[in-house]
Amino acid sequence: MGIRVAVAGASGYAGGELLRLIAGHPEFDLVSATAHSQAGAPVSAVHPHLVGLDLTLGPTEAATLADADLVFLALPHGQSAALAAALPETVKVVDLGADHRLRDGAAWHRYYGGSHAGAWTYGLPELPGQRTAIAAANRVAATGCYAVSTILALAPLIAAGAVSTQDVVVVAASGTSGAGRAAKVNLLGSEVMGDLTPYKVGAHQHVPEIKQATGATSLSFTPVLAPMPRGILATVTALPLGAGASDPRSVLADAYADSPFVHVLPEGIFPHTAATYGSNSCHLQATVDVDSGRVIVVSAIDNLGKGAAGQAVQCANLMLGLPETTGVPVHGVAP
Amino acid sequence: MGIRVAVAGASGYAGGELLRLIAGHPEFDLVSATAHSQAGAPVSAVHPHLVGLDLTLGPTEAATLADADLVFLALPHGQSAALAAALPETVKVVDLGADHRLRDGAAWHRYYGGSHAGAWTYGLPELPGQRTAIAAANRVAATGCYAVSTILALAPLIAAGAVSTQDVVVVAASGTSGAGRAAKVNLLGSEVMGDLTPYKVGAHQHVPEIKQATGATSLSFTPVLAPMPRGILATVTALPLGAGASDPRSVLADAYADSPFVHVLPEGIFPHTAATYGSNSCHLQATVDVDSGRVIVVSAIDNLGKGAAGQAVQCANLMLGLPETTGVPVHGVAP
Amino acid sequence: MGIRVAVAGASGYAGGELLRLIAGHPEFDLVSATAHSQAGAPVSAVHPHLVGLDLTLGPTEAATLADADLVFLALPHGQSAALAAALPETVKVVDLGADHRLRDGAAWHRYYGGSHAGAWTYGLPELPGQRTAIAAANRVAATGCYAVSTILALAPLIAAGAVSTQDVVVVAASGTSGAGRAAKVNLLGSEVMGDLTPYKVGAHQHVPEIKQATGATSLSFTPVLAPMPRGILATVTALPLGAGASDPRSVLADAYADSPFVHVLPEGIFPHTAATYGSNSCHLQATVDVDSGRVIVVSAIDNLGKGAAGQAVQCANLMLGLPETTGVPVHGVAP
Amino acid sequence: MGIRVAVAGASGYAGGELLRLIAGHPEFDLVSATAHSQAGAPVSAVHPHLVGLDLTLGPTEAATLADADLVFLALPHGQSAALAAALPETVKVVDLGADHRLRDGAAWHRYYGGSHAGAWTYGLPELPGQRTAIAAANRVAATGCYAVSTILALAPLIAAGAVSTQDVVVVAASGTSGAGRAAKVNLLGSEVMGDLTPYKVGAHQHVPEIKQATGATSLSFTPVLAPMPRGILATVTALPLGAGASDPRSVLADAYADSPFVHVLPEGIFPHTAATYGSNSCHLQATVDVDSGRVIVVSAIDNLGKGAAGQAVQCANLMLGLPETTGVPVHGVAP
Repeated sequence: MGIRVAVAGASGYAGGELLRLIAGHPEFDLVSATAHSQAGAPVSAVHPHLVGLDLTLGPTEAATLADADLVFLALPHGQSAALAAALPETVKVVDLGADHRLRDGAAWHRYYGGSHAGAWTYGLPELPGQRTAIAAANRVAATGCYAVSTILALAPLIAAGAVSTQDVVVVAASGTSGAGRAAKVNLLGSEVMGDLTPYKVGAHQHVPEIKQATGATSLSFTPVLAPMPRGILATVTALPLGAGASDPRSVLADAYADSPFVHVLPEGIFPHTAATYGSNSCHLQATVDVDSGRVIVVSAIDNLGKGAAGQAVQCANLMLGLPETTGVPVHGVAP
Repeated sequence: MGIRVAVAGASGYAGGELLRLIAGHPEFDLVSATAHSQAGAPVSAVHPHLVGLDLTLGPTEAATLADADLVFLALPHGQSAALAAALPETVKVVDLGADHRLRDGAAWHRYYGGSHAGAWTYGLPELPGQRTAIAAANRVAATGCYAVSTILALAPLIAAGAVSTQDVVVVAASGTSGAGRAAKVNLLGSEVMGDLTPYKVGAHQHVPEIKQATGATSLSFTPVLAPMPRGILATVTALPLGAGASDPRSVLADAYADSPFVHVLPEGIFPHTAATYGSNSCHLQATVDVDSGRVIVVSAIDNLGKGAAGQAVQCANLMLGLPETTGVPVHGVAP
Repeated sequence: MGIRVAVAGASGYAGGELLRLIAGHPEFDLVSATAHSQAGAPVSAVHPHLVGLDLTLGPTEAATLADADLVFLALPHGQSAALAAALPETVKVVDLGADHRLRDGAAWHRYYGGSHAGAWTYGLPELPGQRTAIAAANRVAATGCYAVSTILALAPLIAAGAVSTQDVVVVAASGTSGAGRAAKVNLLGSEVMGDLTPYKVGAHQHVPEIKQATGATSLSFTPVLAPMPRGILATVTALPLGAGASDPRSVLADAYADSPFVHVLPEGIFPHTAATYGSNSCHLQATVDVDSGRVIVVSAIDNLGKGAAGQAVQCANLMLGLPETTGVPVHGVAP
Repeated sequence: MGIRVAVAGASGYAGGELLRLIAGHPEFDLVSATAHSQAGAPVSAVHPHLVGLDLTLGPTEAATLADADLVFLALPHGQSAALAAALPETVKVVDLGADHRLRDGAAWHRYYGGSHAGAWTYGLPELPGQRTAIAAANRVAATGCYAVSTILALAPLIAAGAVSTQDVVVVAASGTSGAGRAAKVNLLGSEVMGDLTPYKVGAHQHVPEIKQATGATSLSFTPVLAPMPRGILATVTALPLGAGASDPRSVLADAYADSPFVHVLPEGIFPHTAATYGSNSCHLQATVDVDSGRVIVVSAIDNLGKGAAGQAVQCANLMLGLPETTGVPVHGVAP
């Protein structure tokens, strides 16, 4: 008899990836999966790639979920807090939404609107001390997809004093699944294939999350929608500060020596998002710009893997006392 | 201590997928992997998605492979026979190439040229009696990618007398990985994105293989290159013959009731190749054309999964006495 | 002062392509463009590629259109008839919808439902005698996108007695713009990229149109959605009948010797849809299948070009006494 | 009798786009087109989208080109100088390569290697005074693709004193045609579809060209390869300096009020590369980052249009006394 897990918001892309990972997890039993408008449909009607996963989506209600040992919440921003509050304290919860990520209620209000539900333990195991904190928590707020790609690139460099906390510049492109599964004209295949377009320029809601987790004090973040289903490539540039700035790759390599999912690539080899497809891995490389002297770090993840479902299962493993890699793929599927 | 396996031709796309499946297989130990021009390179330099797989590619020689319990050959057509002949009889071999698929030497010569090396046990477990045959063999020739997509759609209907063996018409589109990893201008991303193009029209080498496996007596097969990395969608049409022609879906559902990787979808739901990405599954649906009366079966696979590496590991499992699903994914990765 | 033209249904993909062609047409003045839910928006807000085209979309009403010399209707199936009836007889009309294509009211009812509005002159100039008929008409029903790709491949072979009218088998894949611009989950970029999927299998509404235009008596047609914005690749196979069946390429080359938009490619060279992107051209090639003897013709068009807007402007040119190539591109945009 | 033009390097992607534009140009007669390994092939064999363009590629020699009034050179970097030197002074030349762009020989040597051939008039008409200079020149060096996307975004802001010349940070993603048409494994469709990857991080050869044209004094430039055939999206960020920094959009709108190909989009609307496909247009938008205060400008072009062939024909028009828009499309082809 395995650990009983449930998924709320199972009809979206992150929800589907959670179901896939849970189905392949050696210790997890999927006991329920819920959805909003798709409640009542078989999982395989909503996710044809999960053919053979014999389960019907239930309504997204606490009663449907309360029987599990651990619940994943993959809901639109702003919808996790109420549902989580209705679950028994004994049920462990990993929230893939933004509701509980920020400690600063004002920042929450500015970027998300509405009132802030309060912060949970931040679900990025690779931050110093965070594996222990997650293991001790029964409520964990997993990182945002853009945030994780940027934080993993930047946090060790700031922590080492290698780069300045000021004037960090990030441009990050994401595959379309990051924009969700709602029917919108601007997300139609006809519109996105062959197209790159920026959005939320000058004011993206992951900025306070990145600053909170890295210590950056000013940061511009420009997200771009890219013509591919999955993947984030973040280009993170920072002003050089201390000794580590001359060899930023070594700072990163040292920081992640014991992290099974973060791979600092061999010198001169830069990340491909395709190499992370379907995995929970983050690929990193760093260099120093010859003209400006800026430190440039490039980071690649699967936005549904390390950026959402993979990360969430990694956190759940830690909360449950399992090895963090249990049932979470390191290798991508390519080509 | 697991079963010792080796891969020849590990630098190509099928070879890379074999390495990925072997790395995740609970009973296999990868003891060597070989390549031609890439010999000497670390696996992760050639396959960045397999970061962390700590192995260097060796030269493609019998000596590098002979120490394994089972060897997968993922070589260009015509190169398997000599290498296989140089391996000890005690080493089990699964050949992903075409060298040993055909029983008819004349057909081999007509489509592939050169002299025929002789047929091995045909590696398509879902054909009647074939699981037993594969389990008893120590040399197995896995099916071709287009062939498997077509055979699974057609064989039960011909066997049931539901459709004619004559004038089968197949049009099948494949993702670009089916064309291999050699640097060719016509396979550049700039050329293939946004493009559909047929090739080898009127004379494809998988025709005799399909006829041999299904009993079809005349068959036209038109392959099309599609703008996606993986996947085959085969549209197979056949003339109605007997009673089963009025409900071809039931004929297929009966035939594959015990096959864990072949899924006849619910009525009215047609296959998507994307739902099979990264898996060893085949999705099938069938109907009767209202105008012509032809039986139409649509089949979707991952050409590197059920069309190559997944199929090969499935066969290897049978040859080694393992459950055929061991380490072989049923669920695709989507979106 | 040029010819005054208007477009109804200008917010969709075919409508946008009409606007682009009209803006570049040396004899046309665009006097109005209408839309349903987008009425009131500037054209460039709805079609960012038409930046600088200074026009606001009006409501789709006869009054907005009646002032033009020629009106293009690019409306959903079933919505053209009423609007056309409300336009003065003196206004020339090209309907890109299906309402007036079929002579057979029963076939209309079977595939489209509702009552049939009656047939107009069929807008495929390359059919024998049709240029003259179109030039004499003031109401023309342009061909459907799949229909034109198939008819151009098949009609001359049936007319020459080279192939049978019975048991024609067509499989045709289309880019996603063929499915329109409505917001639907199954058309999201995340769903369609990397995916091939068939739809309306066994009963597509273009079948009676193809039969009417070619004389085919039984025909199965399977459409497939392909991961690209534009383009149709049709594989048309027919049973050989007479002398022409041994050299189908010559039959086609003779038929289209004087057609500036239909190109029978050099022997052995097969069409690419990408080569037709943005053009009104159709590329054709034919061969005889070595195994079955079937004649195989492959046809490539841009579904928004020869399959919709290009064809419509070609017809309009003929109706207006202009050379048919005026303002209609022969060359595609590639890569 | 039109103006006689010729193209050297006609088999590549920029060369093909030049041929397409020349074929549609009302004043140009294409008298010869040359290629290296493809010499002797018909144009339509090398560029299937140019079917009907009846010309055979000649060898790339001065003798084949000297008879033209104007020659476009679309050759690999380092190959233009010798060929241009062998052409009569009376032949006007537009070089799409890098050989004659830089005034600083040391910068040339550092980024391109070899000896510097000297600077020609810089072919970016939208820079102040440059239309006049180009009109007076008979040798013009057209801008690089990444350079033009960045310079158009940045130059007016620096000229207006709105942003600092120091610490400009640019991240720009390009479609694969920017990487050329040579057969390389890393450019195969199987590799690039679904993938974003950076390259030449920290040291791109367009940096000195951008600095020369804009007055920037330090600039980091990170290029990314994106899964689409064409298009560049450049995100250009700069430190605010003077009054103009609070409304960077107005600075750009003023600068380009008379430039027919540069479109500063309505406030809040950001560029899509797909909207520029096949055109010579550049779409721009600017804002101020709420967190860092950086000015962010996003620029979209077609790398083969404004980034190569379109720009070159625009320059040629000016050199020949024609309106700069003659035969050069403003509207893109979409979707």
